[in-house]
Amino acid sequence: MRDFLPEDVRRREYVIGIIKRVYERYGFEPLETPAAENIDTLMGKYGEEGNQLIFKILKRGEKLDERLATGETNELADLALRYDLTVPLARVVANNKNDLPKFFKRYQIQPVWRADRPARGRFREFYQCDVDVIGSESMTVEAEILSAVSDILRRLGFTDFTVRVNHRQVLTDILDTAGVPADLHTDALIAIDKLDKIGAEGVAKELADRGIATAAAAMLMDIFAKTQEILGQEKDVNRTIVANLLNIVSNEVLTGLGRILQYAPNAPIVIDPSLARGLSYYTGAIMEISVPDLAGSLGGGGRYDGLIGMFGKEQIPACGFSLGLERILVVMEERNMFPSEIAESTPADVMVTVWSEETTADSLRLADQLRSSGLRVTLYPEADKLGKQLKYADSINVPWVCVLGGSEIAEGKVTLKHMKTGEQETVVPNEISGRIASSRGSK
Amino acid sequence: MRDFLPEDVRRREYVIGIIKRVYERYGFEPLETPAAENIDTLMGKYGEEGNQLIFKILKRGEKLDERLATGETNELADLALRYDLTVPLARVVANNKNDLPKFFKRYQIQPVWRADRPARGRFREFYQCDVDVIGSESMTVEAEILSAVSDILRRLGFTDFTVRVNHRQVLTDILDTAGVPADLHTDALIAIDKLDKIGAEGVAKELADRGIATAAAAMLMDIFAKTQEILGQEKDVNRTIVANLLNIVSNEVLTGLGRILQYAPNAPIVIDPSLARGLSYYTGAIMEISVPDLAGSLGGGGRYDGLIGMFGKEQIPACGFSLGLERILVVMEERNMFPSEIAESTPADVMVTVWSEETTADSLRLADQLRSSGLRVTLYPEADKLGKQLKYADSINVPWVCVLGGSEIAEGKVTLKHMKTGEQETVVPNEISGRIASSRGSK
Repeated sequence: MRDFLPEDVRRREYVIGIIKRVYERYGFEPLETPAAENIDTLMGKYGEEGNQLIFKILKRGEKLDERLATGETNELADLALRYDLTVPLARVVANNKNDLPKFFKRYQIQPVWRADRPARGRFREFYQCDVDVIGSESMTVEAEILSAVSDILRRLGFTDFTVRVNHRQVLTDILDTAGVPADLHTDALIAIDKLDKIGAEGVAKELADRGIATAAAAMLMDIFAKTQEILGQEKDVNRTIVANLLNIVSNEVLTGLGRILQYAPNAPIVIDPSLARGLSYYTGAIMEISVPDLAGSLGGGGRYDGLIGMFGKEQIPACGFSLGLERILVVMEERNMFPSEIAESTPADVMVTVWSEETTADSLRLADQLRSSGLRVTLYPEADKLGKQLKYADSINVPWVCVLGGSEIAEGKVTLKHMKTGEQETVVPNEISGRIASSRGSK
Repeated sequence: MRDFLPEDVRRREYVIGIIKRVYERYGFEPLETPAAENIDTLMGKYGEEGNQLIFKILKRGEKLDERLATGETNELADLALRYDLTVPLARVVANNKNDLPKFFKRYQIQPVWRADRPARGRFREFYQCDVDVIGSESMTVEAEILSAVSDILRRLGFTDFTVRVNHRQVLTDILDTAGVPADLHTDALIAIDKLDKIGAEGVAKELADRGIATAAAAMLMDIFAKTQEILGQEKDVNRTIVANLLNIVSNEVLTGLGRILQYAPNAPIVIDPSLARGLSYYTGAIMEISVPDLAGSLGGGGRYDGLIGMFGKEQIPACGFSLGLERILVVMEERNMFPSEIAESTPADVMVTVWSEETTADSLRLADQLRSSGLRVTLYPEADKLGKQLKYADSINVPWVCVLGGSEIAEGKVTLKHMKTGEQETVVPNEISGRIASSRGSK
């Protein structure tokens, strides 16, 4: 887990700001949930591996003492840190069914925590930027979500991302065709999910390790090799993929995938039958966005029509997508994609100096006056040599300094110094914000 | 810990937005720290009671198994949830001394967690909005911080808040004068801190319980009774208080308090010698802001010149203030202080209907086009009876609906319906954003 110093925070807020604005432009509303959930809410929702990566919070006071006294150490925790934003959303929807609109379109930008091994763009505390539509089975949902996230990435300056889309039923039908028995489907999917990371050979080995018969595994790998070949082609990729799936996958599912393509013409979608996604709660379309220079994805999502029913009586259809803030940031930093106003931001527009203990109140008054005119003003906090004060202003990149010495105060004036050029002039306080604004405009 | 539905989030973001803007206007820069700190960083920093309210995170994997195997259950946790924003700041400053400017002015707006009993405006997860200046002992620091938080409260619409200021040395000198031995000062302060909550009689009883001699306690209570009486007066309160302290408190400390008053003329400050503040790390000025209709405070802070040295070799002076977001919100909600654009906000400016499966792509295209013109647009996600779609638009408070039926599509037009008046007209898509904007302007 990391600290974010001011320039980090500014970059993060720039990206989050764009994500929020686009989500809101698509009619999504903000939701926030607590960092800690009841431990039972989270356990069993993320598959075997997920369970182990959940941070658990120790019980407190008497409840902890009781546990320890019995020597039973299996229920030491009652709360756990949020592991994703989808399960908390499902809980909120189930709990607030009557207060929420028939279709609930929400976005949520908050940290989640996983006790994972850190890697490039992977941290134990990281932000997810989720967008979900609750209440409709229509493919307009998948399409609008993919349009929105594509819109975000383009506004951030990405031009080379790919949206991979698949459907859980495509995977099931392929597994059936290859002769993988139903009770081994989950195992097979966990292996297939690693195709990007460990390659075809690695997956073949893991399939064998997980007890999938050689013939079935070979047929599976064959199907995926063929689709990978098609995905490498230049044109009509989606049409060719669908044509190849016609004998394996039901018409209904393929029509659904076609709808997503038709409804989201601006998203750079390719249908990839090998896309599996790790989380166990997906039931329909699954999707993932990647760029060439980052292993793993910038974000992913899918349809989970069965999850909300785990928290309430009613089964409610739902679909969502999660952009990974850290993944986006790591690529943007490496590619230098931040606009100059973010890269070169300063803590203040102007610094006011303090000449002496006696004139401190005058400096404070000037700072206040400049703030009222809309400027961001920092005060050197104590009387000090002017050279030191200017050196400090330089160290924090403040572009202007107001020098307020004895003679200036006597005349009711201020020496305004431009740090970059070293130019300075004597002005009355009222003129300062105008000078700074006009210099900005002329840049 | 609570969920925040969209209207809650909008209110929270409105307040946070004003706090950020004012802090930035005073030259403060943003910092963020992780939710979890090493447990040793937090333990022992918040006094006895604080230690017990810290949420601890269970060790994981082998490290947990080892602990449990030995039967030693005192070190089951390695991490703990952030309890305030001051201790993490002190750690960041000690760790990053060479990368930070000589005076580091930072703000930080993040949640903290305390296993406390919930009450009005008190939750187990709550946001602190902190502002701190590191590196200067000058009273301009206290003054600018109090000016900034007073500025924030005024911009939020508060007119009746009071800033109470005291100094740890004032308390020490009063305790010495009353004859409380030095090793009982902490106990005495814990009792005095409850004056607001449990009244003079309660404090007197607690002083006795904590072993403070009857004569000393009586003298203490007498001094505080006198200052309380002065605080109830209409004019020259601070002058009278200081005059009364002249024989008890050193000149230097009283001059310091006077400086704060002089340097922050816009903050409604009263010097209150009975203000104690619970946290144990304060060393100089202490301050608290309250309003008549909320027990407890809207925020508090003080100088802590000894804390950063606990994490590094160098002792660095520091002073800060923390506004409590939930405290501010609870009063603003009860007093109805939110501007109408926050109170009446909607998830979108306009909803686009979907006539039939065949025209779905047309509706999506229209939604996209309207978004490009700057509108926030939500799409009804599936083909449905028009009445149902309008009912839904009404339920989510969308002010305008674009009806796109077969005949409209044939003519390249849209029926634009104003939900409140029921008026509708047929327009070409390009005209829509203009119509909506002009109706907004005329309100």
